[in-house]
Amino acid sequence: MEKIKGLIDAPFTPFYKNGEVNYEPIEIYAKLLAKNGLKGVFINGSSGEGYLLTEDERMRLAERWMEVVPKDFKVIVHVGSTCVKSSRKLAEHAVQIGAWGIGAMASPFPKVNRVEELAAYCERIASGAPELPFYYYHIPAFNGAYLPMIELLKTVDGRIPNFAGIKYTYESLYEYNQCRLYKNGKYDMLHGQDETLLPCLAMGGAQGGIGGTTNYNGKVLTGILEAWAKGDLATARELQNFAQEVINVICHYRGNIVGGKRIMKLIGLDLGNNRTPFQNMTDAEEQAMKMELEAIHFFERCNQF
Amino acid sequence: MEKIKGLIDAPFTPFYKNGEVNYEPIEIYAKLLAKNGLKGVFINGSSGEGYLLTEDERMRLAERWMEVVPKDFKVIVHVGSTCVKSSRKLAEHAVQIGAWGIGAMASPFPKVNRVEELAAYCERIASGAPELPFYYYHIPAFNGAYLPMIELLKTVDGRIPNFAGIKYTYESLYEYNQCRLYKNGKYDMLHGQDETLLPCLAMGGAQGGIGGTTNYNGKVLTGILEAWAKGDLATARELQNFAQEVINVICHYRGNIVGGKRIMKLIGLDLGNNRTPFQNMTDAEEQAMKMELEAIHFFERCNQF
Amino acid sequence: MEKIKGLIDAPFTPFYKNGEVNYEPIEIYAKLLAKNGLKGVFINGSSGEGYLLTEDERMRLAERWMEVVPKDFKVIVHVGSTCVKSSRKLAEHAVQIGAWGIGAMASPFPKVNRVEELAAYCERIASGAPELPFYYYHIPAFNGAYLPMIELLKTVDGRIPNFAGIKYTYESLYEYNQCRLYKNGKYDMLHGQDETLLPCLAMGGAQGGIGGTTNYNGKVLTGILEAWAKGDLATARELQNFAQEVINVICHYRGNIVGGKRIMKLIGLDLGNNRTPFQNMTDAEEQAMKMELEAIHFFERCNQF
Amino acid sequence: MEKIKGLIDAPFTPFYKNGEVNYEPIEIYAKLLAKNGLKGVFINGSSGEGYLLTEDERMRLAERWMEVVPKDFKVIVHVGSTCVKSSRKLAEHAVQIGAWGIGAMASPFPKVNRVEELAAYCERIASGAPELPFYYYHIPAFNGAYLPMIELLKTVDGRIPNFAGIKYTYESLYEYNQCRLYKNGKYDMLHGQDETLLPCLAMGGAQGGIGGTTNYNGKVLTGILEAWAKGDLATARELQNFAQEVINVICHYRGNIVGGKRIMKLIGLDLGNNRTPFQNMTDAEEQAMKMELEAIHFFERCNQF
Repeated sequence: MEKIKGLIDAPFTPFYKNGEVNYEPIEIYAKLLAKNGLKGVFINGSSGEGYLLTEDERMRLAERWMEVVPKDFKVIVHVGSTCVKSSRKLAEHAVQIGAWGIGAMASPFPKVNRVEELAAYCERIASGAPELPFYYYHIPAFNGAYLPMIELLKTVDGRIPNFAGIKYTYESLYEYNQCRLYKNGKYDMLHGQDETLLPCLAMGGAQGGIGGTTNYNGKVLTGILEAWAKGDLATARELQNFAQEVINVICHYRGNIVGGKRIMKLIGLDLGNNRTPFQNMTDAEEQAMKMELEAIHFFERCNQF
Repeated sequence: MEKIKGLIDAPFTPFYKNGEVNYEPIEIYAKLLAKNGLKGVFINGSSGEGYLLTEDERMRLAERWMEVVPKDFKVIVHVGSTCVKSSRKLAEHAVQIGAWGIGAMASPFPKVNRVEELAAYCERIASGAPELPFYYYHIPAFNGAYLPMIELLKTVDGRIPNFAGIKYTYESLYEYNQCRLYKNGKYDMLHGQDETLLPCLAMGGAQGGIGGTTNYNGKVLTGILEAWAKGDLATARELQNFAQEVINVICHYRGNIVGGKRIMKLIGLDLGNNRTPFQNMTDAEEQAMKMELEAIHFFERCNQF
Repeated sequence: MEKIKGLIDAPFTPFYKNGEVNYEPIEIYAKLLAKNGLKGVFINGSSGEGYLLTEDERMRLAERWMEVVPKDFKVIVHVGSTCVKSSRKLAEHAVQIGAWGIGAMASPFPKVNRVEELAAYCERIASGAPELPFYYYHIPAFNGAYLPMIELLKTVDGRIPNFAGIKYTYESLYEYNQCRLYKNGKYDMLHGQDETLLPCLAMGGAQGGIGGTTNYNGKVLTGILEAWAKGDLATARELQNFAQEVINVICHYRGNIVGGKRIMKLIGLDLGNNRTPFQNMTDAEEQAMKMELEAIHFFERCNQF
Repeated sequence: MEKIKGLIDAPFTPFYKNGEVNYEPIEIYAKLLAKNGLKGVFINGSSGEGYLLTEDERMRLAERWMEVVPKDFKVIVHVGSTCVKSSRKLAEHAVQIGAWGIGAMASPFPKVNRVEELAAYCERIASGAPELPFYYYHIPAFNGAYLPMIELLKTVDGRIPNFAGIKYTYESLYEYNQCRLYKNGKYDMLHGQDETLLPCLAMGGAQGGIGGTTNYNGKVLTGILEAWAKGDLATARELQNFAQEVINVICHYRGNIVGGKRIMKLIGLDLGNNRTPFQNMTDAEEQAMKMELEAIHFFERCNQF
């Protein structure tokens, strides 16, 4: 199975002021990402507030992204939801529109406590798009599914033919590496934490990744991969340190989904608010964040139109 | 606002073998519950696998329950979901079909970390059915929303006019009682753990409750309320102890949603399996559970048609 | 084995301003407790900062309490520590000084993850005082030992002859009751949360208990037991509600060990500060707490000399 | 302040069969470690079961290690305990015997919830050995002190003159790196997880570290540092992967304190059992572990006498 090289972006979902999805900015959004080095999008995931969208909205968003992305720009559709029947339908829809792949995190409800439950959940969804690669999205801090990923690989291996790998959004580079080494690298281990690309590269991982801060800091983050490939460790470190400084800032503003989305407005692409129950940033918070970003010269290095 | 007296049941959702919702058994199900002392149903909640149903299925289930319940039998529709837009629509639908009330637990995704977020979430949903009582369903073990309920009451008081109270499914009888005492009992505190009805009654609470094991053990559980009302403590204790013995059994079979639903088959109302990712009971497990229930003479005391 | 009737107090440990243990106030402290209805003391536990004392200090404190308590006033020595060798020595010392019983919570380090580990830990300590009743002190919020107590009883039953029961400081009245019913009440289940004495009594429990707020609110708390025994539910409820109001106050001041200890000063028995790393109350906090207590007329109902 | 270069070992504490500390093997133990590339020892920590030792045993162990270590071999004494008075005494003792430095983790009881509490705890201990470097040992999985380390550095900076840095035993390389960068590397950030030395090196960290598996796998682990220094990434990766394989094995046998200590016996240095409540390995487990280690050719690469 093809392995992803480079960074995929997890885009935010644009909303109008009235809270409805705004499909307008997606075309320019896709151009922005491609121009700044991203290789694709992982849509309707956590950054995209996928769980807060209706089934219809999720399908229309997937269609719109498919229409506007450049050639060879991968569209991976996150289809996870609490209703596996709906997820299955979204998987089938992803096939119909020609998406490159699909993915799903563990359902946050009911909390998945056993590897077998998780495997059955993935199986049901993946089999709805058998010709597409399926990625399990491991992000236990969000859904409580603190399950051993090696056990998941062993359980799905030989059972879910299109299980492609894991988007690994968790701190354990030890577990990441063990998964990476499983059967000589059978599965694609996408790195999922922008703050630690460099250490993961050193271990032999992070050939591909899915980023959340790549929306606005993609040039810097793809720069880490390029510097590493060239053997330029000093540059890679400087870029990784800068990426962490940016993440330090969004951590002051309720993280990437809230704070990061607002950065898009500051760089010129207003994507609107977040849906309830996310607590949106006030104007004063936006102003304070802007100053923090200016202090680290972010606007000179961020993604450019 | 009217307060609920007696026990409301949280019914399971019937499925066909193929995994689709089976609306057939609902009529007889409603009769069974009413006959055994229940005062209403809280549908599409955790016992009902509400999060695992599509929006359409949830609406059709609500309609069907409305059609078949006896007069004065309350139908409360759980409308919580990860998509507040969908929850709002379900709330509006509940009004249209004449439901008695609505409820919602905190969204399990994104995890709600602040009382203000939770209040905004409740507000958005409750305002979709302004003429109906809205109950917040507090079940933090399921969704991670370990927030102080007194703070929630203070925050919604004067802000959400139809906020009726809390279905309290958590162990802290201290917090329960503090909520009960808030503004001299302004809010309806529905007891939500069948294993501790009696202690809650002693404190002055549990005038109303919502049960999960009432599906099959409703006679015993309503018996606790009756015995207490008559001052018959010995009987109340015996019944509460028995209710705990039944709960001991379902704890051996992955709890009420899985094990309890299978008990319905054993008492004569086959409701089918659970949806993925619930891990259904094997026939061997069913047989073992049956023997455990026989050992405590459950089938002589359970709900009867 | 004798079962405890009534409430045992978990006293604070008095310190001089320089941080050394002050043995002076213990005589009057014991009188205060006995006068206000307490039946004994559980010393060197969490309220007593037992883990923050040296082995020598713990022994001297035990000796001093033995010297000053009235006849038939039980002294139970908490001997738990991270070093089972030291705990064993403290258990042997408790025998030598004639203490009524001993107790130990699970070691907070290493975190105890298996019932067998906990049983072995209890066994090693209890066998150091084979003639004394040994109580396991279950307080998982403090040490992370979230283990099933029924399993502990099954494991120690027939193996630790002097295992007397459990001081149960946890919210699950369901588990408490199951332990209480084990082998027709073989083990003494001491209630350990002052906020829920009444509900526990209703279930048939709380014949004995160990309190932390009994240090200053013992009259009220023993009053709950007396009112219940007389069948005076209204009084029992009023007293339980008041006890919760007092607990509401200490929750504003870092709980019983910090806030509660300072209340002792306010009622006339200055016990000094807490040891590091407890963060002691400032004078402003003390003043604010005093006002909160006055607002609920605490000083008219608290323990009196 | 001097920064540590290379790897320090956290030794196990030898016990006789009767459970008493055995000081005999320490001399040969020290030689083994020095011979295999270690630069010092961090004694009486978690691997050394420091919390399970008496104050006297801890002091005698420290004295013995001081007597036998080669010149320039650092002895850092972990003095943390639940009793800060005892920790302070141990710190003073470390000065007296000429130890190189001291360290302490957060007390596991009471659980430390505020950075200020932790800073006060460190301050009290560190000031007992003002001429020695003090290292905070961050291992929240063991003591629940999930506090932000950057905040700790800011709080102790300018307040605890001999605060040298942090032994960082946690997964967040992001936080590690932020601490490393604080004030241009003012504090010594010792890497504390043997499974991720290589990724940490890439980021610019892990110039020094404290290992637990270095007891038996020190040659391999110091080899990672050497290979990295030479720019030999392929070797560094191979060694890191092997180190993870060894850790995979001990994870099957209750981790390093239990399983790792038994490996010492298998390589020729029997250190006895663990103290209660650790559950010691059976002979059958030992045999099974040996076979797992043989399967990865561990005994050909492990530390050699």
